[in-house]
Amino acid sequence: MNDPIHELTTLLARLPGIGERTATRLVYYILESNVDYAITLGSALSEIHRLIRRCKICGNYAIESRCIICQDSSRDGDLICVVARPSDITAIEKNHLFHGRYFVLHGLLSPLDGIGPEKLSIQPLLDQVKQGMVKEVIIATPLSVDGEATALFLAQNLNEYDVYCSRIASGLPHGGELEYTDQITLSRAFEGRRKL
Amino acid sequence: MNDPIHELTTLLARLPGIGERTATRLVYYILESNVDYAITLGSALSEIHRLIRRCKICGNYAIESRCIICQDSSRDGDLICVVARPSDITAIEKNHLFHGRYFVLHGLLSPLDGIGPEKLSIQPLLDQVKQGMVKEVIIATPLSVDGEATALFLAQNLNEYDVYCSRIASGLPHGGELEYTDQITLSRAFEGRRKL
Repeated sequence: MNDPIHELTTLLARLPGIGERTATRLVYYILESNVDYAITLGSALSEIHRLIRRCKICGNYAIESRCIICQDSSRDGDLICVVARPSDITAIEKNHLFHGRYFVLHGLLSPLDGIGPEKLSIQPLLDQVKQGMVKEVIIATPLSVDGEATALFLAQNLNEYDVYCSRIASGLPHGGELEYTDQITLSRAFEGRRKL
Repeated sequence: MNDPIHELTTLLARLPGIGERTATRLVYYILESNVDYAITLGSALSEIHRLIRRCKICGNYAIESRCIICQDSSRDGDLICVVARPSDITAIEKNHLFHGRYFVLHGLLSPLDGIGPEKLSIQPLLDQVKQGMVKEVIIATPLSVDGEATALFLAQNLNEYDVYCSRIASGLPHGGELEYTDQITLSRAFEGRRKL
């Protein structure tokens, strides 16, 4: 006979950062809480994929066919920032430092995981560039191996068009001490040095 | 217009140990995962209160009218361990150190939170004791202020009957250093000293 407590625990333990122990604690909390909470949370989870879609222009999460940013006519249309995930947009938007639009890859090239160029949908980005409205594409994929490979791959594809392609800087983080900085970051900080 | 991402984040952030940041990360994970996972998890949550009830004898979580422990005829019927929550049973059962039955209070006396004796359902326990089958009641509520007050209250009520009432020991934990032990624990360890 199936044990609903064990089943729910196993499902919760699949979430990132939630182990078997935390999942058990959550299930007990839910059982001691109001019935309505469990039902409301349950239906919010079941419905989330139906309610949230990908923006047809940039791939960001959206309630309508276009996301809030693509609907905002005050944003620069000639500047596109390419990110790996929608959560990266949230991080950038918090800083109010960028006023262009975005393009979400929903992944990175990762040959070891079998994610090659054909699995990365960059055609909608190339189409926008092709129309000639975009002046600069800022590639803001992570500074990891996969993120760097994806940036290179994007730059190669964008080279065919009349568009300026840039990459976010790599170097020491704010407050970073040279003593505690890894070799790669340090060499990148030197390579990327700028005139004072 | 309601934002389903924000709504789900708020609901998840009500879980213990899950803040706004973790909740946001979970929502993004769920959105990037398979649709089936969100729907399965959602329905498991919505259904959990319907599938799990309280054992009519001890109050532990159960799939049928009696929990697994109360259904187990090999357990001692004359020994009852009183705990605050069903999760305490899981902790004790893991150790295989107790072979009696349990009684779950589903709470503790907490005058500051408005939980007085009338909100604690101890009558089913008293009824069992009244029947004369129980020899000992081990009170295993936490060693906190509320847990101690509840233990005292229970002992007073059980005193009327012919039953031995005991309390789990308080003292230094395994590996505990005197130097790092708080005053109350240390004084309890001295009070509870036993002949060697």
